[in-house]
Amino acid sequence: MGRRRSAGLRSHRLRTRRPGAARAAGDARKGASVNHETRATPSIRSAKKARAAFRAGDTSPTAGWAAGFTQANLISVPADWAYEMLLFCQRNPKPCPVLDVTDAGSWSTPLAPGADLRTDLPLYRVWEHGELTAEPTDVVGHWRDDLVTFLIGCSFTFEWALADAGVPLRHIEQGRNVPMYVTDRPCRPAGRLHGPMVVSMRPVPPSRLADAIRESSLMPAVHGSPVHCGDPGGLGIAHLDRPDFGDAVALEPDDIPVFWACGVTPQAAVMASRPPFAITHAPGRMFVTDARDEQYRVV
Amino acid sequence: MGRRRSAGLRSHRLRTRRPGAARAAGDARKGASVNHETRATPSIRSAKKARAAFRAGDTSPTAGWAAGFTQANLISVPADWAYEMLLFCQRNPKPCPVLDVTDAGSWSTPLAPGADLRTDLPLYRVWEHGELTAEPTDVVGHWRDDLVTFLIGCSFTFEWALADAGVPLRHIEQGRNVPMYVTDRPCRPAGRLHGPMVVSMRPVPPSRLADAIRESSLMPAVHGSPVHCGDPGGLGIAHLDRPDFGDAVALEPDDIPVFWACGVTPQAAVMASRPPFAITHAPGRMFVTDARDEQYRVV
Repeated sequence: MGRRRSAGLRSHRLRTRRPGAARAAGDARKGASVNHETRATPSIRSAKKARAAFRAGDTSPTAGWAAGFTQANLISVPADWAYEMLLFCQRNPKPCPVLDVTDAGSWSTPLAPGADLRTDLPLYRVWEHGELTAEPTDVVGHWRDDLVTFLIGCSFTFEWALADAGVPLRHIEQGRNVPMYVTDRPCRPAGRLHGPMVVSMRPVPPSRLADAIRESSLMPAVHGSPVHCGDPGGLGIAHLDRPDFGDAVALEPDDIPVFWACGVTPQAAVMASRPPFAITHAPGRMFVTDARDEQYRVV
Repeated sequence: MGRRRSAGLRSHRLRTRRPGAARAAGDARKGASVNHETRATPSIRSAKKARAAFRAGDTSPTAGWAAGFTQANLISVPADWAYEMLLFCQRNPKPCPVLDVTDAGSWSTPLAPGADLRTDLPLYRVWEHGELTAEPTDVVGHWRDDLVTFLIGCSFTFEWALADAGVPLRHIEQGRNVPMYVTDRPCRPAGRLHGPMVVSMRPVPPSRLADAIRESSLMPAVHGSPVHCGDPGGLGIAHLDRPDFGDAVALEPDDIPVFWACGVTPQAAVMASRPPFAITHAPGRMFVTDARDEQYRVV
C-alpha cells in the first residue's frame, strides 16, 4: 500500500511536471546551474547579508551560505489547511520538525527579525492542486492574506556536527546537492494530508557510522537520527543513482548509505494531497535564519 | 507584564475556585488523599493493568505506577480550538511537548492501543469558560464528538534517568508530589490561547547538577533541559514552600532548586484564556501509555 502510493506519486509527478520544472525537481543543482547559479563558494557569512542577496535576486542554492546559521524548509498553505499541516508535522516529527509557524498572512518570523519570507529565499515554487505552476524568485505577487507559513528543520543543520565529528560529507566533497528519495513509507496522515516520507542519503564509512548516528541524534529538531542504514530496498528505493531530488553521489568502497528523514516531505504531501494552493522553497534554496545550528543540539 | 498576567491568573484562580476544587488544585496529593487515594506503593507494573485499574475506579496518583512506561498529560478541547492549542504547543515546546493528537471525537491513541482516553485515567477535570466545574473519575458523560485530545510529555519520564544517574529525587524520598509553580514568564501566545509557563521544581545537590541537566537535556520530548536553576525569584516565584500545584518539598543544605517546564502549562492556559469547554487530567493523575521512557531519549 505504501509502496503503491509512493510509486503512484512518483509517476504522477513525472507525468505532470513541466520540462523546466522536471529538470529543477529531478536535479535541483544541475537544473538550476543551467538557469541561475554560479557554483563559486559563497563568501557571505552573515545570515542577514545572505537574505539581502537573495532578496536582491541571487538564486543560488544556499548550501555553504552563512555557515553556522540554521537553514529551514518553507511551506505556506491557506489557513483552512494549516491545522492539518501542523498535525501532519506533529505526527511525522522526523521528516517535518517544525521550527516556526507564522500567524495567517504574516511574512515575518522571530527566527529572523526583519526578514521577509516572500522575498528572502533564492527561489520559490508555487503549487495549485498539487501541480507546480511557477518557480519565481519572489512570491509577493502570489501572496494571500490567509497563508500560514511553516518553517521546517533542514539536515544542513547537522552537517556541521557530522563534519566536526570526522564524518566525511561525500556530496560536498563531490560538489553536489545531497540526493533525496521518495520512499515507500507512508507518513501518518492528518485529515486531508497524506504522502510518502522523503529521505536524504549520505554515504558513511563503517568506522564513522556510530559518530554519524550519535551526532544527528543529538539534533532532533533537524530530523535527528537516521531512519535507515544500508540496503536502499528497505525503503523501497530501487536505484541510488537516480534520486528524486538533488544529485546522485558516488559511494566509496565499503560506504554504507545512511538515510535521514527529509524536509522535502511536506512538498511530497502537497503533490499527493493536492491542496488548492501552496508555496514552498525550491529544493536546495532554503530560508537562512538568524538561529544558530548549535541551538538545535540538545547537549 | 508577564508578572502582572501571572499574578492576575493566580488571584483569579484563587478567587473563583470552589472550596473542594481549591484544595485539589492547590495540593493535588493532599487534597486527593482526603477524598480518594491510598499511598501504598502500587504493585502494578504493566501499563495495561494500570489503565484497567483506573478504568475500574482507582483514583490514585500515577507516580510509581507501571515504572518505565511513559506517562502523559491530557487536554481535550473543542475542534475549533484545536489549531490554536497545537500552535500554542509548537510555540512553547518546552512546557508543551506533544506526544500525540487524536482525531476529533476519538478516544483512542496509538500510544496505547485499546485504551479509552475517557475512562482510563484516575481522575479528570472538566472546565467551562476557564472555571473548574467537575472532577470526575471518567468523562464518558462529558464527552463531545468535536473534542480533540492532546497528550503532552510529562517530567515523570525523565525522573528514572535522573535517578539512574545518581540524582536524588527529594519529592520521592519525602513521599510527596513534585511541587509546581506558576511563573512570571508568559508563553508565546497562539491566537486566543495565552498564559504563563508552569514549572516543576526538584532540589539538586551541586555535585549532581551537571548530571541532572545532561540527562534531562537528552529527553527533549518530555520537557528537556531545565529552564532555570537557582533563585526562584528569577521566575517570579516568591515562596518555594507555597507551590501552586503539588506539595512543598524540603531542600537539603546546599541543594539548588532546579526548574523544568511543566505539562500543567496547558491547564494554566485554559484558566487564563477561558475556552468554552475543556477536559484535562487532574494534576498527578496522568495517562499511562504503552510507550517506554527510553523511546524519548535521543541517544
